Amino acid sequence: MKKVVTIGGGTGSFVTLRGIKNYPFDITAIVSTFDSGGSSGVLRDEYGILPPGDIRRCLVALSDDSTQSIVRELFNYRFDKDGTLQGHNFGNLLLTALTQIEGNYPDAITKASQILNCKGTIYPVALESAHLCAELEDGQIIKKETNIDVPKHNPYLKIKKIFLDSEAVLYEKAEQAILEADLIVVCPGDLYTSVIPNFLVSGIQDVLRQSKAKKLYICNLMTKLGETHEFKVSDFAKEILRYSGLEKFDYMICNTKKIDEIVLQKYASENQYPVVLDQDSYQYADQIIEEDLFIDGEVLRHDSNQIGAIIEKII
Amino acid sequence: MKKVVTIGGGTGSFVTLRGIKNYPFDITAIVSTFDSGGSSGVLRDEYGILPPGDIRRCLVALSDDSTQSIVRELFNYRFDKDGTLQGHNFGNLLLTALTQIEGNYPDAITKASQILNCKGTIYPVALESAHLCAELEDGQIIKKETNIDVPKHNPYLKIKKIFLDSEAVLYEKAEQAILEADLIVVCPGDLYTSVIPNFLVSGIQDVLRQSKAKKLYICNLMTKLGETHEFKVSDFAKEILRYSGLEKFDYMICNTKKIDEIVLQKYASENQYPVVLDQDSYQYADQIIEEDLFIDGEVLRHDSNQIGAIIEKII
Repeated sequence: MKKVVTIGGGTGSFVTLRGIKNYPFDITAIVSTFDSGGSSGVLRDEYGILPPGDIRRCLVALSDDSTQSIVRELFNYRFDKDGTLQGHNFGNLLLTALTQIEGNYPDAITKASQILNCKGTIYPVALESAHLCAELEDGQIIKKETNIDVPKHNPYLKIKKIFLDSEAVLYEKAEQAILEADLIVVCPGDLYTSVIPNFLVSGIQDVLRQSKAKKLYICNLMTKLGETHEFKVSDFAKEILRYSGLEKFDYMICNTKKIDEIVLQKYASENQYPVVLDQDSYQYADQIIEEDLFIDGEVLRHDSNQIGAIIEKII
Repeated sequence: MKKVVTIGGGTGSFVTLRGIKNYPFDITAIVSTFDSGGSSGVLRDEYGILPPGDIRRCLVALSDDSTQSIVRELFNYRFDKDGTLQGHNFGNLLLTALTQIEGNYPDAITKASQILNCKGTIYPVALESAHLCAELEDGQIIKKETNIDVPKHNPYLKIKKIFLDSEAVLYEKAEQAILEADLIVVCPGDLYTSVIPNFLVSGIQDVLRQSKAKKLYICNLMTKLGETHEFKVSDFAKEILRYSGLEKFDYMICNTKKIDEIVLQKYASENQYPVVLDQDSYQYADQIIEEDLFIDGEVLRHDSNQIGAIIEKII
């Protein structure tokens, strides 16, 4: 059975994992653990656990279709009424309780995987608690993931580099999975707050270089103000290669489908624009796969089925 | 398949249900819904749901042995560290989330039963939110269950009567179960805060009288200061008959096993003493079953297996 490792954060890993979960792959999802906002941030601060939000999304993505739909619904449920639980996601509370019961985070994830009958394994990229920081082009240092993700500073300032405020080391089981992988997929997602943070942990660059796996990068559909404003495919690719220590991808998947004008306008009102596949991009991958990558709708999301089919072809 | 209905609250229903769950009975647990303290009380106040604590205990009691033990462990897990979730029981949070998702409490209980593979059905005694009140012998009115359960008043004052602050009506499915039952078991538990509250809902007296089921009462092992101080078996029985409108039980189960001196002393330090089977009791039941009813240990609990075996015999 071919071994596929995904590296990413929340939403982008979700669509990728949904796409490949029904293929006969041995799947390992490696997930960033440096979020600091929302329900995850509160639980991280109060209970000293790693932020559960992205792990939760991957758990739901890999959950078997035989799992009772109410269990999946519960995992995604967010308490919205006023009260102690406001804003908390039920799945996050479950991971918090499991971490207290099991005494450590990896075992908590394993138990949650069993409850959801997950197809595949989920590992945090590191077990240490560290905070993400960004240095902007004007020299300002922005501390904590949530302040980079939702900028309180001038969002037109470019990010010069991101780093962790303390050392985090690649989790040994994640390391093993990378070394044994046939294909490593760098998922789409917020570049500086979801994807690249994985490459900031000590040891990952060496391990990626040692791994004989093919490397695939699935590029974002849209830019994001405050992180990737005006970025083209080549900018995304260059940044990931820079932080991962890789020289080149074997494959990149990029969208070529035209986005509906009304949807475009809606995104434009939030300063988000389509990521253009520019000529420069071709130097960063042996092969660029250009496809219609999203499903029509008001919210642009990668088409899981399409991603699954492409991965099945190239593996 | 014989139909058994239990009526009670938390702990006492738990031991009874554990005891009968592996027999081929069609089990329905009717549970009091007037608690106002602890995690249940907070969720009741903040989310307008019925207090979930007692329902949760019954769910765990009826959960199938095939259910992953971690799921049962989660249901019982209480967040103990400082923080937003402190004191909340995870199972209570789950029932709260399910109630929001399903839009009503009975459906939430059904879904929770499915998650736990419960053997049997659990119904709240009523769907209306009402508060328990007690009138003491000096005329004082104590409002809310938690203030009766954990008295702030002089606990040596006897309870003259208990009542609800607004009308609650016997839930129609609970009514149906009572009418169709072969055996109705009044479980042990806090007399005025867990057991009798069930008999305060409108309609239950008529339905109990109409039901052709045999009626069994399992008496408490120990008295409780503030509720049943100095009560003998006859006092317990008399009070339940008074509120339920029944004339007599078919059976009562009472403990005759001697309690270890050291355990007795520990309980005495909390003003709890063994409930004595007095001569008066015999007028309140056609048959009194006297058995060794508890398992040795520091905490006195009814022996579920013993209860199950007795019920199997008399049904």
